[in-house]
Amino acid sequence: MAGTYQESWKEPFLSPPRFEVTRSAKRLAELAKSATNLSVSGVVTEERIASMQSRGAGLTMLYGFQRVDQEILRELQALAEERQVVPQMQALFAGRSVNFIEGFDSERRAALHPATRDVFEQAITSDLSARRVVEEELQKLRTFFGEIGNSYDTMLFIGIGGSELGPHAIADALTCYNLPSRKVHYIGNIDPDEMTAALRGTDLRKTLVAIVSKSGSTLETATNEARARQAFQTAGLDPKQHFIAVTSPKTPMDDLSRYRAVFHLFDFVGGRFSSTSVVGGVLICFLAGATTFFEFLDGANQMDRLALRLDIRDNLPLLLALLSVWNRNFLGFPTVAVIPYSQALRRFPAHLQQCEMESNGKSVDRYGRRIPYPTAPVLWGEPGTNAQHSFFQLLHQGTDVVPVEFIGFKDSQYGEDCMYNGTSSQDKLLSNLFAQALALALGHDNENPNKYFSGNRPSTLILGQKLDAKTLGALLALYENKIAFEGFLWGINSFDQEGVQLGKGLAEQLIAVCRARREGREDLSASAVGRRLLDIVEDIGSAHGIVPKSR
Amino acid sequence: MAGTYQESWKEPFLSPPRFEVTRSAKRLAELAKSATNLSVSGVVTEERIASMQSRGAGLTMLYGFQRVDQEILRELQALAEERQVVPQMQALFAGRSVNFIEGFDSERRAALHPATRDVFEQAITSDLSARRVVEEELQKLRTFFGEIGNSYDTMLFIGIGGSELGPHAIADALTCYNLPSRKVHYIGNIDPDEMTAALRGTDLRKTLVAIVSKSGSTLETATNEARARQAFQTAGLDPKQHFIAVTSPKTPMDDLSRYRAVFHLFDFVGGRFSSTSVVGGVLICFLAGATTFFEFLDGANQMDRLALRLDIRDNLPLLLALLSVWNRNFLGFPTVAVIPYSQALRRFPAHLQQCEMESNGKSVDRYGRRIPYPTAPVLWGEPGTNAQHSFFQLLHQGTDVVPVEFIGFKDSQYGEDCMYNGTSSQDKLLSNLFAQALALALGHDNENPNKYFSGNRPSTLILGQKLDAKTLGALLALYENKIAFEGFLWGINSFDQEGVQLGKGLAEQLIAVCRARREGREDLSASAVGRRLLDIVEDIGSAHGIVPKSR
Repeated sequence: MAGTYQESWKEPFLSPPRFEVTRSAKRLAELAKSATNLSVSGVVTEERIASMQSRGAGLTMLYGFQRVDQEILRELQALAEERQVVPQMQALFAGRSVNFIEGFDSERRAALHPATRDVFEQAITSDLSARRVVEEELQKLRTFFGEIGNSYDTMLFIGIGGSELGPHAIADALTCYNLPSRKVHYIGNIDPDEMTAALRGTDLRKTLVAIVSKSGSTLETATNEARARQAFQTAGLDPKQHFIAVTSPKTPMDDLSRYRAVFHLFDFVGGRFSSTSVVGGVLICFLAGATTFFEFLDGANQMDRLALRLDIRDNLPLLLALLSVWNRNFLGFPTVAVIPYSQALRRFPAHLQQCEMESNGKSVDRYGRRIPYPTAPVLWGEPGTNAQHSFFQLLHQGTDVVPVEFIGFKDSQYGEDCMYNGTSSQDKLLSNLFAQALALALGHDNENPNKYFSGNRPSTLILGQKLDAKTLGALLALYENKIAFEGFLWGINSFDQEGVQLGKGLAEQLIAVCRARREGREDLSASAVGRRLLDIVEDIGSAHGIVPKSR
Repeated sequence: MAGTYQESWKEPFLSPPRFEVTRSAKRLAELAKSATNLSVSGVVTEERIASMQSRGAGLTMLYGFQRVDQEILRELQALAEERQVVPQMQALFAGRSVNFIEGFDSERRAALHPATRDVFEQAITSDLSARRVVEEELQKLRTFFGEIGNSYDTMLFIGIGGSELGPHAIADALTCYNLPSRKVHYIGNIDPDEMTAALRGTDLRKTLVAIVSKSGSTLETATNEARARQAFQTAGLDPKQHFIAVTSPKTPMDDLSRYRAVFHLFDFVGGRFSSTSVVGGVLICFLAGATTFFEFLDGANQMDRLALRLDIRDNLPLLLALLSVWNRNFLGFPTVAVIPYSQALRRFPAHLQQCEMESNGKSVDRYGRRIPYPTAPVLWGEPGTNAQHSFFQLLHQGTDVVPVEFIGFKDSQYGEDCMYNGTSSQDKLLSNLFAQALALALGHDNENPNKYFSGNRPSTLILGQKLDAKTLGALLALYENKIAFEGFLWGINSFDQEGVQLGKGLAEQLIAVCRARREGREDLSASAVGRRLLDIVEDIGSAHGIVPKSR
């Protein structure tokens, strides 16, 4: 389908009516005033739950606990069509430059992360050169990790943001499939204590260090690399034998004289969408082997195939995006909680938080016009059942409504369990997940106002058989494509991150002041307020009488 | 001060005017319409930043990046007085039954967690029997951990929610101070994979297992304990020699025939406020020793002393609470992000998330009346600088404003650093923290709308010299007391959690169905919808053709 896409490729991005003036958005705003009330007796029936489900790529999505009915679903379908979001997705899969703002300087790049896993069956991405370099890098991964065998048992994975959150989340999720005694320390923060803690108790002789930076010049990563190299040299080891680089071609890190191997990222893959690229690849191939990594890619590719379907009931990512937009723009809920009932997914919400909020936390549209409706919600979450004993009080009885996306699996990963009081822990885990969705939706009346539950609080359930590598790939791609669809619906560019530049520039000024002070010079490049902040922190020790002022 | 408190103790809770009808709240609502705009040139000056700071218990709080001026601060002071929040805090310190809803069945307990650290200088809590039992338990901790010496190097810490999040967060924060080769695995989740992963590679002979449950009957904890006992028995070890209990007197776990030691929690300490009790005690004493634990208590006690001050500029927790209420109720921001620039505090936001949202995610007041204003915001966060490369895009350019509480320290914990390009990593860390606060407040104009920053986004900076045990105690108590003050301002009971009961009951019904199905019986205690959900998940394997239907 994507392969036959030939027309002026910007059209689906620029020609559709603006989100707020689409016929369907106006109609949805009307429908929202009398949206399905889940707490009314007889609304949430077993027929409703059974019929409101979509399946694909190994995942089952239940949306009968959302405040929608058939009419609202039809209007959501219409919204997807009016906003031409599937054609936009086709343009993405075709490798078009979807990362742009019309009429202004912008990155003008493709966002072809689906190509990083389009190495199975018939291709669905249509940029042959992208697929070729992807396959080359995958071959390099296989070869390298085959060659090194068991020379290393520990990896220091040095990267931050898009170079860390996704890979970290997926590696945690797949720990069950690790090769014997493989382990990893993640170092992202410029905070020196993180590196100190990681170096303690690590046998550097058996350690492989992966430096991951798309630009090859990320402040935190470059600093931490310098410190790691010092540590190896101090230990009498040659960094070149232990360090590998993951970076774009031609960056300062693309240098085989300094690294044992260099794996290439390409500018058609954004950092937060790089989990299925060599960024995730070096980590998962090291920890769990290349076969597991390819299973993961396979699952993601399966889900990508669904993202090109036109009917929202067959297109899980689009349906999830539309339900998100329904909750955010029409029902007015400012946040969304993702609650995996799986301890292995403990870092998955933090990855989605980045992916959603960095992609869609924007205020201007494709023409650079200020947007009059809310875009990305705050996405947050922790695993259940733990979260039930933490913030679920607010989800049930707080003054704000928080829609929830529950994730759960029929089987445990290790298959080891404990029968206690006649049921397994897995039975109890799933029972708790379902009970929370029911309690949020139905509520409960009580004469004691403190034991009253209003109900009518929506959720979606995303279920799989087991959290294996393939299912994890599908789950990741479900959310990656969902996030892209949200951006297409809202008419924003989900693929840049100009909002991080201002702080970066101001930090450089303050760092210049620190450098000058250490050298006994004065530097006025930072503002007076910034310099005063540095004075205040410098005074903290002396103010408390613990450490003399050192400047 | 608290000791002389004699009057009808409920008065400060019940007699003040309701939050929304206080004179000061009405005035603040007016002032909010023209609240300080931080992005206007000349507003954020170095004088403003330097003067808007409060210090105490080793912490410095800068609030010049909040959208307040002297008039607003005076009205916030007036709001604190109209709502009688310091007298309410005095009642809490006096050990009064502050956990109540007037006119309805409620828990009617004290919330005397400050007593768990009131073991220094002159006492500030006035319940002698509470202080006596606290001192007894602290003595038991010292004795026990002295006696066991180095018999164990690993702890399995089995507890959930209030019995896990706080202790986990503080233990992570103090890893730097751990005794040699001490380590811990946390098991909270009913998810069987968490326990399986923890048991792999753990030498049970050197393992101490702490079972932590205030009620002695928490589903997850009881299940995980049963499985851990099986593992010890299978390994030919006597659980009694390895298991210790932390529970209330007279629960099923208060049984020295089954545990090597039992440490007592009391009903005057809520789970989410139990970090300074024996719950945190068994963990920190094991990992870092009793001296470190007492330093932590000392810091918390120092901060508690400030919480009884009347002037909001001297009362850091109250000031933080008032700024939170200002942002939530008058400026209308639905969430707050806590961003520690310290990797050691990586789990601290998750603990605060529980503490805030379980305490104040409520919709009824002290009289059980429905509340017409928002209460607890969604509190969330991840460490900086990592978060800058994640969701900060949305903080700077999203359509919603998210107030931020930054936490930072002058010195690193380990004192090991790396000079790179003329500055240390700690220099870079703090420069980044300050740069973010500046960027959020000031914004930046640009002809390219995609590079435009509106600014006027508020933050508070909480700074200390070094994250040692004492400073961590002060930081924890800052937030514990802040959360209590918010509840006092909103007129709610922050100390119960009735909102978790409905889901718990529904889960028990579904678990009963699972049990019956495993025994070949039918059980109809759960609703038809609930049973259908169990059918759907059971069908998942067969629907995907992987596993035959087993029922």
